[in-house]
Amino acid sequence: MTDLEEIEAIKRLKYRYIRALDCKEWADLGACLATDCRTAYGDGRFSFEGRAAILAFLQESLGAATRISSHRVHHPEIELTGPTTATGVWALDDVVIDAAAKLTIRGAAYYRDEYVKIGGEWKIAETGYRRIYEEMESRTDTPSLALTRNAFAGAGVAP
Amino acid sequence: MTDLEEIEAIKRLKYRYIRALDCKEWADLGACLATDCRTAYGDGRFSFEGRAAILAFLQESLGAATRISSHRVHHPEIELTGPTTATGVWALDDVVIDAAAKLTIRGAAYYRDEYVKIGGEWKIAETGYRRIYEEMESRTDTPSLALTRNAFAGAGVAP
Amino acid sequence: MTDLEEIEAIKRLKYRYIRALDCKEWADLGACLATDCRTAYGDGRFSFEGRAAILAFLQESLGAATRISSHRVHHPEIELTGPTTATGVWALDDVVIDAAAKLTIRGAAYYRDEYVKIGGEWKIAETGYRRIYEEMESRTDTPSLALTRNAFAGAGVAP
Repeated sequence: MTDLEEIEAIKRLKYRYIRALDCKEWADLGACLATDCRTAYGDGRFSFEGRAAILAFLQESLGAATRISSHRVHHPEIELTGPTTATGVWALDDVVIDAAAKLTIRGAAYYRDEYVKIGGEWKIAETGYRRIYEEMESRTDTPSLALTRNAFAGAGVAP
Repeated sequence: MTDLEEIEAIKRLKYRYIRALDCKEWADLGACLATDCRTAYGDGRFSFEGRAAILAFLQESLGAATRISSHRVHHPEIELTGPTTATGVWALDDVVIDAAAKLTIRGAAYYRDEYVKIGGEWKIAETGYRRIYEEMESRTDTPSLALTRNAFAGAGVAP
Repeated sequence: MTDLEEIEAIKRLKYRYIRALDCKEWADLGACLATDCRTAYGDGRFSFEGRAAILAFLQESLGAATRISSHRVHHPEIELTGPTTATGVWALDDVVIDAAAKLTIRGAAYYRDEYVKIGGEWKIAETGYRRIYEEMESRTDTPSLALTRNAFAGAGVAP
């Protein structure tokens, strides 16, 4: 593979990780992580070691059908540091809607990741981000604000 | 062309389609679509067949100078499935401001597209998205909220 | 370098420029600009010539720790126009939070850039954007809205 093909594969890994996260597809998310992956989300406040611990944290934080997340990663600056290692810097935008608590959290950050190629497939070896800003507001401040669509709302969860 | 060049060309097609949509450049938008293109926007609520029907729907929905849209597509996962066929998954963020009705609609979704190469040019053969969430609010909830710039505002449309 | 490698290098330049801007890393931002760079930000309202004048404007506009910016560029349409020249069209989303004035400004735009390769490195030769829309609101309209994280807040700046 050429360097550009490796870089495209690493971008794809990150996109799949985010898609699995926001779609709450936990097995697929796990497949994106090295078994000894380490995280330092939220300026290091949420630091975990190992795929199982990371998955447990993410499922607890974002598993509920009333907890809707939309992460978006941009501006990839990927560096190949060896045949099976790479680093990446990404801009992050994130929105988390807690429909039960009637809260919205929004923010911007920069991810700094490390990747490792295992058995021909890139995996996330380390991931974490530092906030540029984060803000929170009650959704009751804007009386008309209505969630008109929630992919995870089934019986008993509105909408 | 190499696979990466094909993928870059498909990304460019999608970017041109979105730019034409948000800039209300309907002829350019039409040129992005196969003549027998099919859509399933909004979880299939907005399903159309054929370039003419799709253009009619988009112009009716978003043609007004008081209806400002900003679509953003991210996280491309493009697969070449043959020499002239490909699929694509994209994350979508969209904002629609209806300055007349004083409404803002925002949301996130995942597109699943099919592309076809006709006469050396990639076209959108099928496009549609499933919502992660959508929300709507009245712009009058936030009394100070002012539209300070609208590219489409001419005589008689404020601002 | 292949055309795709040149295009990747130009994208990386733009991402570094935005990262330097939002992280207030002015020396790094300056290194992204040709010395005779020209700007036409904000539909040409903010037009400057020369790296020094541009940096002075950006630092004055966004230098304060209470002025948080988050620019995001998307949908790159890069054209190589010669061995050392290129053009680029980008979609922009931007958020500026003025924590002191308690204002948020948000908007969407399209950048049209020119790039030049000098001594083997791509630089921004010309950059400017035209707004699709811009809106402004007082953060006091939403009483609960709180900035919970600001990367630039040190002693005496909340939060």
